[in-house]
This record gives sequence, structure tokens and C-alpha cells, in this order.
Amino acid sequence: MTDNIIYLDNAATTAPSQAAVRAMVKAAKCFGNPSSLHGLGLEAEKLILAATETISDMLGVNSKNILFTSGGTEANNTAIFGAAEARRKLGTKLITSSIEHPSVLEAFRRLERLGFDVEYIGADKDGTVDVDALEQAADDNTVLVSVMHVNNETGVIQPIEIIREIINKKSPNALLHSDCVQSFGKMEVKPKKMGADMITVSSHKIHGYKGTGALYVSDMRMIRPVIFGGEQQGKMRPGTENVGGILAFGAAAKECNVDNEYLIRLRQGMIKELSRIPDIKINGCEDHNSGSILNVSFVGIKAEILLHALEAKKVYVSTGSACSSHKPQPSHVLGAMGLSKKEIDGAIRISFDTATTAYDITAAADIIEKEVAAIRRYM
Amino acid sequence: MTDNIIYLDNAATTAPSQAAVRAMVKAAKCFGNPSSLHGLGLEAEKLILAATETISDMLGVNSKNILFTSGGTEANNTAIFGAAEARRKLGTKLITSSIEHPSVLEAFRRLERLGFDVEYIGADKDGTVDVDALEQAADDNTVLVSVMHVNNETGVIQPIEIIREIINKKSPNALLHSDCVQSFGKMEVKPKKMGADMITVSSHKIHGYKGTGALYVSDMRMIRPVIFGGEQQGKMRPGTENVGGILAFGAAAKECNVDNEYLIRLRQGMIKELSRIPDIKINGCEDHNSGSILNVSFVGIKAEILLHALEAKKVYVSTGSACSSHKPQPSHVLGAMGLSKKEIDGAIRISFDTATTAYDITAAADIIEKEVAAIRRYM
Repeated sequence: MTDNIIYLDNAATTAPSQAAVRAMVKAAKCFGNPSSLHGLGLEAEKLILAATETISDMLGVNSKNILFTSGGTEANNTAIFGAAEARRKLGTKLITSSIEHPSVLEAFRRLERLGFDVEYIGADKDGTVDVDALEQAADDNTVLVSVMHVNNETGVIQPIEIIREIINKKSPNALLHSDCVQSFGKMEVKPKKMGADMITVSSHKIHGYKGTGALYVSDMRMIRPVIFGGEQQGKMRPGTENVGGILAFGAAAKECNVDNEYLIRLRQGMIKELSRIPDIKINGCEDHNSGSILNVSFVGIKAEILLHALEAKKVYVSTGSACSSHKPQPSHVLGAMGLSKKEIDGAIRISFDTATTAYDITAAADIIEKEVAAIRRYM
Repeated sequence: MTDNIIYLDNAATTAPSQAAVRAMVKAAKCFGNPSSLHGLGLEAEKLILAATETISDMLGVNSKNILFTSGGTEANNTAIFGAAEARRKLGTKLITSSIEHPSVLEAFRRLERLGFDVEYIGADKDGTVDVDALEQAADDNTVLVSVMHVNNETGVIQPIEIIREIINKKSPNALLHSDCVQSFGKMEVKPKKMGADMITVSSHKIHGYKGTGALYVSDMRMIRPVIFGGEQQGKMRPGTENVGGILAFGAAAKECNVDNEYLIRLRQGMIKELSRIPDIKINGCEDHNSGSILNVSFVGIKAEILLHALEAKKVYVSTGSACSSHKPQPSHVLGAMGLSKKEIDGAIRISFDTATTAYDITAAADIIEKEVAAIRRYM
């Protein structure tokens, strides 16, 4: 099924690499339980440590600051619930943005129900979080701020360093968490440089397997666990480690070719190609957009119809984010940016990978142009 | 490393089968995000459903009652936190046993800190939960009872059906959860027959991969989620599904040869072989023991020394459970059974699989006999 396709849905997921598959095969051979006292356990433990170091090196942090989770969702939940619980005595105000991933937004909504005071900061028409509003909201009582690094629908890079400065100035008790699922592996992600106390990364967005993510925490004592059990991962995230998933994550990270310049060229190339189509709108930020994601509205068209028309021509794109695409509501991200209903209804996400070629761009653009014209003809 | 070994630590983990490895390779090819609207997503979703049905068929339940988790620990946490939160208005008393797995015990300890009244029922000298004490504890205010099916250290089968009867009589508002991680795939596990409202199972104990477990819930409305995010799994357990892990779980379940009679013969064979060693004590229940686990105390010997001596001869066993083996405390299970310190210190867990042969038993027993004698000579 995946032969001769043009896969431009890399923000939803990527294919596990050969190295990731080999890691899974290796994990079947080195199958010991990492907690076992005997050599088979020790061997698995060593392999996990090596994979952890590959990932922590990429982030420029120490391996002891990495917590493996079942994916980005659990990592985001752990950061948010873990920090809110640990800091409750210091304050009850939490700040996030209205354009976060559901695994961040729904965690904050839960904390609201538990009595926290959560402020949701909006975004401007280019999809950048409103830092002025954030500065106004941040106070002494604020204990956690969570803003994503790269938005999963538009690719807009958020001003994490500026948010760090605001926190330093106005909220000395606040931790800064950033969901870096869409930036890790696509551009430089260095939590210390960004000023983030916690960041979330995911394996399946960088050619590892689904089911493995990680949370970087600058000091594990700053959070409380969400899952309770045995002694694994210093009791911060117990449960037998997903050895295969972690090894595959390490193998994928090792091969990761972080080249946002190349992705930006792909994105610009696609914008140029699509510009010959009338009534389109590029949703994002000219200056601060990751090359990995292009969000474009084909005004007047239902995105889902275009998606299926493209699929019939073996071009794979997405409407909004995969995690909410079965949900009929319009995109909360594009809504926060003030797009019209017609612009939101016609929005397609095209997402790139370093394996995407210039040929893919021109071929896909030709197909998109034809299909858009055909759909508009029958409207 | 795994050639020519006698692996008798199957309760800690098992090697992923060839079918499980093939499922992981397949998941790398069918790599779509199950939430994606296009065909690649649909294909992944279909594969997940087929795997779910294999597992639900084995349990004799409907596939819509299965929730995939990152493993047994998260499944136990979800059942316990999920039910306690959902039923809080009906009552605040919870009952479990003192011989549960840490992922059950630590979840209840957390609920105690959150204001629930938790009663921990003891066990008799044979390792069976004290049903009389449970009957005394169970009342109108009780909303959750969690007792494991087969104990992970001793293999003792717990009287779940009797506990169900007690609940029916005394605690009409209580749900019954049973951690079936050590019974699933080793003996018949049918939640409806057992009378369990929720049961936990794990993939890596039945030759799937680590990192995947499942919770059966007879009615999803009876619990609340522990993890919050997107629309996956009906929002009860959001996050992109671990497609590879789930397919491997299904593949392992499909091949699962549930034959406790065979395991019982292996266990009896080992007991017979070991009976020629002086000063040993079999810890467990003559009548109600799963064949999968044999716990035996070599009195006067430090179990860890014996474990490493056996490892040097390529025989792999465990002291207690893997998830707490890095923890220096003595076994809470054997402690609850009233064993002496010497008996606990010398306790080894030998755990079997249907791939274990009669030859493995005699060969391992000979090695154990020699090593025990050698250690005792130098004591």
C-alpha cells in the first residue's frame, strides 16, 4: 500500500526506519526484564541506557533527566499533572495557550476541575501565542506555564525564550514546560537554551515506533508521578520499560538528520507551486515557521473531500491534526487565529520530512491543483 | 546470550515470539496513524481491531470492552484510580490484599493519601487471601475490591469467584478488579465466569513485547480516565495507539497455548526433583497453585547468591518479582504469609512456560542441587 505514494502527513506519524525495526528485532533477542537481577536483565538495562544517552545527547542534557513514557500524550500529562501537584503549595495559577495539543489542553481542563485557576492565552492571526497577554497573566501565584515549541497544525514556532524571560521576571515559582513533539528531530531542540524546565518528545514522529515518548525534566524532584507501582525509572514512571520501543527510539534518534533549512526549502517550494491556485490562504507565520508543516486553506472547498481526492492519487495529507481528525469540530487552532469558517473548513495540513524530495513537491502540487480545480468545478 | 540457557524466569518476562516480531515488522510497513482520515490510517485501525478481537475472544468478551495501555502497571492504575474516582459519590471504602503487585498497592496508597479508606486484607500461610477478613471488611460504603488472580511471587490462585459472592452479598456498590497478568495465557481467564468487572492483562508475559497491556472493563462508563488528550479509545485512554505493540500482543495471543495442566506437571516435576535437597520449603498452596510459578526457600542461603551461581550455569530464575528485585526490602508477599526471615531470604521464584521441557526441569534441578550444596559448604 505504501509503494509509490507521496506521503505528506509526517506531522501525524512517520514510518519506522530500518534501524528502528532492527532495534525491535534485537529487543526480541535481548528480552530480559531490565529489573531482573541476572545478566539478561542487566543486558536490557544497558541497552536502554545507551538509547537514553542518544536521546539526551541530542537534547544536550543528562540521561538521568529523561523519563520514558508511552508517548507524547502521557509525557505532556506527566509534566502538567506532575508539576501542578508538586507546586500546589506555592500557587494555584497555571498558564497555557489556546492552540496547544489536546493532551495539554485536556490536562489543564482536568486541573481546572480540581480547583486550579487556568488561563488560556490566545494567538494572533499568524498563529503565534500572545506574549503580551501571557505577561499580563503571569504572576506570583503562577506555578506552571506550558506552551508548545512548534504548533502541530500550522508549524508556527512559538517564542519559548521570550516566555522564559517573562517567567523569570514575573513568576519566580513557575516551571516552563514545552511540548516539542513537532520540533524534535525537525529543528534544534535544546531545552537548556530554550529555558524550558520540561520538554516532551515522541518517537513515532522521527521514524521510531508509536507507543514511546519521553519527558525531559531538569530536576525530577520538581514533579510527582502520575502512574504508581514498582521501582522502575526511580519510581517516577514505574512499569516494565518498553525496551523495544525505547531501543527503536534511540535508533531513530541516532539517524535523525535535523535539517530545518532543507524542510524550509521544501515548504517554500510548495507555497510557490500552490500560489498558482486561486483563492488559497497560507496559515502560519512567514518569519517563524518550522519547515516541517504547511497549513493552507483552499477557500470554499471541504478539506475532507480534497483529502480523499488526493488520496485517490496517492498523495497523503491531513485535515488538522490526526488526534482530532475523527472529531467533527472545526480546528481550535485555526479558530484561535481568527480564520473564517470557510478558511477553516478548507484547511489542509501538508507536512514534510527530510526524505521528502523536490520531485514530491512538484508532483503533489500538480495533483493538488488538478483536484482543487475539479472539486471547485462541481461545487 | 540466550543460546543454550534454561530460562525459568517466565513470570518476569518472556521472549517475544517470531509472530510478535513479524507483527512489529508489519507495523513498520502499515505505519499510518490510526486516527488519520486517509487509507493509511484506516489500515492501521483495522489491524488494531483484529488484534483486539483476538484478545477479547480469548477472554470471552466484546472487543469494545478492551482498553489498551502501556502495560500491566498502567492498566492496574487505570482500573483502580478510574473506578475510585467514578464511584466516590457512592462510597469511599476500598479493599485490596496485602499480597498484590506494587502497581496495585501503590495505587491504593495514593488513594489513601487522597482521602479514601483502604483496607488491606492479609493472606494465610499458604498464600491465599483471607476471605473471612474480606467478608468482614466489605460493607455498603465499599466501592472497589481489587484482588489478583494468580500471585506473581508464589503462583497461588486467589478465590475470585468467592470474593464476587461476598461483594454481591455485602457491597452492592463495589466493582471487582483482578490483576490477571500472571494468569492470562497460563490458565483460563474469563472475566465473566470469574465475576470480575475489570481485569488487567499484559503482553510481555505471553511472548509479546514489553510496553503493551490491556484492561477489560465490563462497562466503560464505570470508570474515569487517568490520561487526558485526544479522541483515541473513546477518550478513555487517549494518545496515538502503540500499533506495533498491539499487533504483537494480538499475534502472541493468537499463538497462546493455554495449558495449565502441562505447567502443573512441570511444577510438580520440579518439586519432586528438588525434594532431595535438604532444608527447603515450598511456598504456595498445594491445591490452588498455578503451574506457572514455583516459590521455594533454600533455608539458610541468600537467594541472590544462589541466583548468580545458577546464572553462571545458564539457569535463570528470580528472587521475588522483577519489579521489586532492585529493592533491598524482603518480599511483602512472603512476609504476609508469615514466613521466617531465613525462609524469605532464601526464596527463589522458578517460573515456567509451555516451551519449558521435562529435560529443562531435570537439568535445572541437578544444577540447583549442586549449587545449593556448594553454597552451603562455604557458609
